[in-house]
Amino acid sequence: MRARDLLADFPTVALDSPVLEAARLLADQDLPGLIVVGDDGSPFTILPGTEVLRLAVPAYCQDDPALARVVDEAHADAFLHGLGVRTVREALPRHRRELPVTDPGATVLELAALMARTRSPLVAILEDGRLTGAVTLQALLDRVLAS
Amino acid sequence: MRARDLLADFPTVALDSPVLEAARLLADQDLPGLIVVGDDGSPFTILPGTEVLRLAVPAYCQDDPALARVVDEAHADAFLHGLGVRTVREALPRHRRELPVTDPGATVLELAALMARTRSPLVAILEDGRLTGAVTLQALLDRVLAS
Repeated sequence: MRARDLLADFPTVALDSPVLEAARLLADQDLPGLIVVGDDGSPFTILPGTEVLRLAVPAYCQDDPALARVVDEAHADAFLHGLGVRTVREALPRHRRELPVTDPGATVLELAALMARTRSPLVAILEDGRLTGAVTLQALLDRVLAS
Repeated sequence: MRARDLLADFPTVALDSPVLEAARLLADQDLPGLIVVGDDGSPFTILPGTEVLRLAVPAYCQDDPALARVVDEAHADAFLHGLGVRTVREALPRHRRELPVTDPGATVLELAALMARTRSPLVAILEDGRLTGAVTLQALLDRVLAS
Protein backbone atom coordinates (compact mmCIF):
# COMPACT_ATOMS: atom_id res chain seq x y z
CA MET A 1 0.00 0.00 0.00
CA ARG A 2 1.36 3.37 -1.05
CA ALA A 3 0.33 7.01 -0.67
CA ARG A 4 -1.25 6.89 -4.13
CA ASP A 5 -3.71 4.24 -2.84
CA LEU A 6 -4.82 6.42 0.10
CA LEU A 7 -4.80 9.76 -1.66
CA ALA A 8 -7.95 11.91 -1.75
CA ASP A 9 -8.72 15.37 -3.07
CA PHE A 10 -8.24 17.96 -0.38
CA PRO A 11 -9.35 21.58 -0.39
CA THR A 12 -6.78 24.35 -0.01
CA VAL A 13 -6.80 27.92 1.25
CA ALA A 14 -4.67 30.75 -0.05
CA LEU A 15 -2.29 32.83 2.05
CA ASP A 16 -4.56 35.81 1.45
CA SER A 17 -7.74 34.00 2.51
CA PRO A 18 -9.33 35.46 5.64
CA VAL A 19 -8.71 33.36 8.79
CA LEU A 20 -12.49 33.28 9.28
CA GLU A 21 -12.93 31.62 5.89
CA ALA A 22 -10.23 29.07 6.74
CA ALA A 23 -12.00 28.25 10.02
CA ARG A 24 -15.29 27.89 8.18
CA LEU A 25 -13.77 25.49 5.63
CA LEU A 26 -12.31 23.38 8.43
CA ALA A 27 -15.66 23.21 10.24
CA ASP A 28 -17.96 22.79 7.24
CA GLN A 29 -15.95 19.98 5.66
CA ASP A 30 -14.98 18.41 8.98
CA LEU A 31 -11.30 18.48 8.04
CA PRO A 32 -8.42 17.47 10.34
CA GLY A 33 -6.38 20.46 9.13
CA LEU A 34 -5.75 22.74 6.18
CA ILE A 35 -3.28 22.99 3.32
CA VAL A 36 -2.29 26.62 2.80
CA VAL A 37 -0.97 27.20 -0.71
CA GLY A 38 1.42 29.95 -1.72
CA ASP A 39 1.10 32.22 -4.71
CA ASP A 40 2.56 29.46 -6.94
CA GLY A 41 -0.12 26.93 -5.89
CA SER A 42 2.29 24.67 -3.99
CA PRO A 43 1.87 24.02 -0.23
CA PHE A 44 3.27 26.89 1.82
CA THR A 45 2.32 25.37 5.15
CA ILE A 46 0.03 22.64 6.46
CA LEU A 47 -1.89 23.38 9.64
CA PRO A 48 -3.53 20.85 11.97
CA GLY A 49 -6.98 22.04 13.16
CA THR A 50 -5.55 23.29 16.44
CA GLU A 51 -3.05 25.48 14.55
CA VAL A 52 -5.92 26.96 12.52
CA LEU A 53 -7.55 27.77 15.85
CA ARG A 54 -4.30 29.40 17.01
CA LEU A 55 -4.60 31.86 14.13
CA ALA A 56 -7.98 32.91 15.52
CA VAL A 57 -7.43 33.04 19.29
CA PRO A 58 -5.93 36.25 20.75
CA ALA A 59 -2.33 35.60 21.82
CA TYR A 60 -2.87 36.86 25.40
CA CYS A 61 -5.45 34.08 25.94
CA GLN A 62 -3.11 31.39 24.63
CA ASP A 63 -0.31 32.44 26.93
CA ASP A 64 -2.61 32.39 29.94
CA PRO A 65 -6.04 30.76 29.47
CA ALA A 66 -7.11 32.23 32.83
CA LEU A 67 -7.21 35.64 31.09
CA ALA A 68 -9.88 34.27 28.76
CA ARG A 69 -12.07 33.79 31.85
CA VAL A 70 -12.38 37.54 32.43
CA VAL A 71 -14.04 38.01 29.01
CA ASP A 72 -17.81 37.84 29.49
CA GLU A 73 -19.90 35.18 27.77
CA ALA A 74 -21.39 37.42 25.06
CA HIS A 75 -17.97 38.71 24.00
CA ALA A 76 -16.46 35.22 24.24
CA ASP A 77 -19.17 33.85 21.92
CA ALA A 78 -18.21 36.47 19.33
CA PHE A 79 -14.43 36.05 19.48
CA LEU A 80 -14.15 34.95 15.85
CA HIS A 81 -15.82 38.14 14.69
CA GLY A 82 -12.92 40.07 16.19
CA LEU A 83 -10.83 38.66 13.35
CA GLY A 84 -12.48 40.90 10.76
CA VAL A 85 -10.72 40.40 7.43
CA ARG A 86 -7.39 39.31 8.97
CA THR A 87 -5.72 36.95 6.51
CA VAL A 88 -3.92 33.66 7.07
CA ARG A 89 -0.69 35.34 5.91
CA GLU A 90 -1.05 38.02 8.60
CA ALA A 91 -1.88 35.52 11.34
CA LEU A 92 0.76 32.85 10.65
CA PRO A 93 3.58 32.60 13.19
CA ARG A 94 6.97 33.75 11.95
CA HIS A 95 8.47 30.30 12.46
CA ARG A 96 7.33 28.02 9.66
CA ARG A 97 6.37 24.42 10.50
CA GLU A 98 8.18 21.44 9.00
CA LEU A 99 6.14 20.65 5.89
CA PRO A 100 4.51 17.17 5.93
CA VAL A 101 4.76 16.42 2.22
CA THR A 102 5.85 13.33 0.36
CA ASP A 103 5.47 11.57 -2.97
CA PRO A 104 2.85 9.05 -4.19
CA GLY A 105 5.28 6.16 -3.66
CA ALA A 106 5.59 6.61 0.11
CA THR A 107 4.63 3.54 2.17
CA VAL A 108 2.16 3.68 5.06
CA LEU A 109 5.07 3.53 7.51
CA GLU A 110 6.65 6.60 5.89
CA LEU A 111 3.30 8.42 6.00
CA ALA A 112 2.74 7.46 9.64
CA ALA A 113 6.29 8.50 10.60
CA LEU A 114 5.80 11.84 8.87
CA MET A 115 2.48 12.48 10.62
CA ALA A 116 3.95 11.47 13.98
CA ARG A 117 7.09 13.58 13.53
CA THR A 118 5.35 16.74 12.30
CA ARG A 119 2.25 16.21 14.49
CA SER A 120 0.13 16.68 11.39
CA PRO A 121 -3.05 14.64 10.84
CA LEU A 122 -2.63 15.13 7.11
CA VAL A 123 0.21 14.79 4.62
CA ALA A 124 0.16 16.51 1.24
CA ILE A 125 1.20 14.43 -1.75
CA LEU A 126 3.26 16.10 -4.45
CA GLU A 127 4.02 14.67 -7.87
CA ASP A 128 6.58 16.53 -9.99
CA GLY A 129 6.20 19.44 -7.57
CA ARG A 130 2.43 19.62 -8.12
CA LEU A 131 -0.09 19.07 -5.30
CA THR A 132 -2.18 15.99 -6.12
CA GLY A 133 -4.12 15.58 -2.85
CA ALA A 134 -3.60 14.48 0.73
CA VAL A 135 -3.60 11.43 2.97
CA THR A 136 -5.33 11.88 6.32
CA LEU A 137 -4.55 10.09 9.57
CA GLN A 138 -8.08 8.61 9.53
CA ALA A 139 -7.68 7.24 5.99
CA LEU A 140 -4.29 5.78 6.93
CA LEU A 141 -5.51 4.08 10.12
CA ASP A 142 -8.69 2.81 8.47
CA ARG A 143 -6.69 1.06 5.75
CA VAL A 144 -3.86 -0.20 7.93
CA LEU A 145 -6.24 -1.65 10.52
CA ALA A 146 -8.37 -3.30 7.84
CA SER A 147 -5.41 -5.05 6.20
CA MET B 1 -22.45 29.55 25.38
CA ARG B 2 -20.56 27.42 27.87
CA ALA B 3 -18.74 24.09 27.84
CA ARG B 4 -21.88 22.41 29.23
CA ASP B 5 -23.75 23.41 26.02
CA LEU B 6 -21.10 21.81 23.76
CA LEU B 7 -20.35 18.76 25.85
CA ALA B 8 -20.73 15.26 24.39
CA ASP B 9 -20.02 11.79 25.69
CA PHE B 10 -16.53 10.73 24.76
CA PRO B 11 -15.02 7.23 24.94
CA THR B 12 -11.93 6.63 27.04
CA VAL B 13 -9.08 4.15 27.02
CA ALA B 14 -7.27 2.83 30.07
CA LEU B 15 -3.52 3.07 30.66
CA ASP B 16 -3.35 -0.70 30.35
CA SER B 17 -5.25 -0.83 27.04
CA PRO B 18 -3.13 -2.10 24.14
CA VAL B 19 -1.96 0.69 21.79
CA LEU B 20 -3.54 -1.28 18.94
CA GLU B 21 -6.94 -1.09 20.64
CA ALA B 22 -6.50 2.66 21.17
CA ALA B 23 -5.68 3.15 17.47
CA ARG B 24 -8.72 1.06 16.53
CA LEU B 25 -11.03 3.17 18.73
CA LEU B 26 -9.66 6.36 17.18
CA ALA B 27 -10.21 5.04 13.65
CA ASP B 28 -13.57 3.30 14.16
CA GLN B 29 -15.23 6.25 15.89
CA ASP B 30 -13.46 8.87 13.78
CA LEU B 31 -12.21 10.68 16.88
CA PRO B 32 -9.85 13.69 16.89
CA GLY B 33 -7.95 12.20 19.83
CA LEU B 34 -8.26 10.04 22.92
CA ILE B 35 -8.79 10.54 26.64
CA VAL B 36 -6.57 8.12 28.57
CA VAL B 37 -7.90 7.54 32.07
CA GLY B 38 -5.82 6.50 35.05
CA ASP B 39 -6.63 3.78 37.54
CA ASP B 40 -8.97 6.20 39.40
CA GLY B 41 -11.03 6.92 36.25
CA SER B 42 -9.88 10.54 35.91
CA PRO B 43 -8.00 11.77 32.80
CA PHE B 44 -4.32 10.83 32.99
CA THR B 45 -3.46 12.32 29.61
CA ILE B 46 -5.29 13.48 26.49
CA LEU B 47 -3.73 12.60 23.16
CA PRO B 48 -4.44 14.23 19.78
CA GLY B 49 -4.68 11.64 16.98
CA THR B 50 -1.09 12.30 15.90
CA GLU B 51 0.14 11.52 19.44
CA VAL B 52 -1.77 8.23 19.36
CA LEU B 53 0.07 7.49 16.13
CA ARG B 54 3.37 8.36 17.84
CA LEU B 55 2.72 5.54 20.32
CA ALA B 56 2.57 3.15 17.36
CA VAL B 57 5.41 4.30 15.08
CA PRO B 58 8.93 3.01 15.83
CA ALA B 59 11.05 5.83 17.26
CA TYR B 60 13.84 5.45 14.69
CA CYS B 61 11.34 6.28 11.91
CA GLN B 62 10.09 9.39 13.70
CA ASP B 63 13.59 10.75 14.16
CA ASP B 64 14.41 10.21 10.51
CA PRO B 65 11.46 9.42 8.19
CA ALA B 66 13.99 8.49 5.46
CA LEU B 67 14.75 5.35 7.49
CA ALA B 68 11.10 4.32 7.04
CA ARG B 69 11.79 4.21 3.30
CA VAL B 70 14.18 1.26 3.62
CA VAL B 71 11.38 -0.90 5.07
CA ASP B 72 9.72 -2.80 2.22
CA GLU B 73 6.06 -2.33 1.41
CA ALA B 74 4.82 -5.62 2.92
CA HIS B 75 6.54 -4.95 6.24
CA ALA B 76 5.45 -1.29 6.19
CA ASP B 77 1.81 -2.35 5.73
CA ALA B 78 2.08 -4.50 8.84
CA PHE B 79 3.80 -1.97 11.11
CA LEU B 80 0.91 -1.88 13.59
CA HIS B 81 1.15 -5.62 14.12
CA GLY B 82 4.67 -5.10 15.45
CA LEU B 83 3.02 -3.51 18.49
CA GLY B 84 1.77 -6.84 19.79
CA VAL B 85 0.19 -6.30 23.20
CA ARG B 86 2.21 -3.17 24.02
CA THR B 87 0.06 -0.99 26.27
CA VAL B 88 -0.57 2.75 26.23
CA ARG B 89 1.23 2.99 29.59
CA GLU B 90 4.35 1.36 28.13
CA ALA B 91 4.32 3.54 25.01
CA LEU B 92 3.64 6.96 26.55
CA PRO B 93 6.56 9.39 26.54
CA ARG B 94 8.09 10.10 29.94
CA HIS B 95 7.19 13.79 29.71
CA ARG B 96 3.48 14.24 30.38
CA ARG B 97 1.52 16.72 28.24
CA GLU B 98 -0.29 19.72 29.75
CA LEU B 99 -3.79 18.38 30.41
CA PRO B 100 -6.55 20.17 28.44
CA VAL B 101 -9.30 19.97 31.06
CA THR B 102 -11.75 22.55 32.32
CA ASP B 103 -15.15 22.86 34.00
CA PRO B 104 -18.67 23.03 32.50
CA GLY B 105 -18.77 26.81 33.00
CA ALA B 106 -15.87 27.57 30.63
CA THR B 107 -16.72 29.96 27.76
CA VAL B 108 -15.98 29.18 24.12
CA LEU B 109 -13.01 31.55 24.27
CA GLU B 110 -11.56 29.64 27.21
CA LEU B 111 -12.09 26.36 25.39
CA ALA B 112 -10.51 27.69 22.20
CA ALA B 113 -7.55 29.15 24.12
CA LEU B 114 -7.01 25.82 25.87
CA MET B 115 -7.15 23.87 22.59
CA ALA B 116 -4.77 26.33 20.93
CA ARG B 117 -2.33 26.35 23.85
CA THR B 118 -2.20 22.59 24.36
CA ARG B 119 -2.57 21.80 20.64
CA SER B 120 -5.40 19.43 21.56
CA PRO B 121 -8.49 19.08 19.35
CA LEU B 122 -10.46 18.00 22.41
CA VAL B 123 -10.89 19.26 25.95
CA ALA B 124 -12.16 17.02 28.75
CA ILE B 125 -14.80 18.51 31.05
CA LEU B 126 -14.60 17.69 34.74
CA GLU B 127 -17.30 18.40 37.31
CA ASP B 128 -16.35 17.85 40.95
CA GLY B 129 -13.29 15.97 39.71
CA ARG B 130 -15.41 13.55 37.67
CA LEU B 131 -15.13 13.25 33.87
CA THR B 132 -18.46 14.28 32.31
CA GLY B 133 -17.49 14.30 28.61
CA ALA B 134 -15.50 16.36 26.14
CA VAL B 135 -15.77 19.31 23.77
CA THR B 136 -14.16 18.81 20.36
CA LEU B 137 -12.66 21.48 18.11
CA GLN B 138 -15.27 20.61 15.47
CA ALA B 139 -18.19 21.02 17.91
CA LEU B 140 -16.73 24.32 19.08
CA LEU B 141 -16.20 25.76 15.59
CA ASP B 142 -19.59 24.53 14.36
CA ARG B 143 -21.41 26.34 17.16
CA VAL B 144 -19.28 29.49 17.17
CA LEU B 145 -19.57 29.92 13.40
CA ALA B 146 -23.35 29.32 13.47
CA SER B 147 -23.95 31.98 16.12
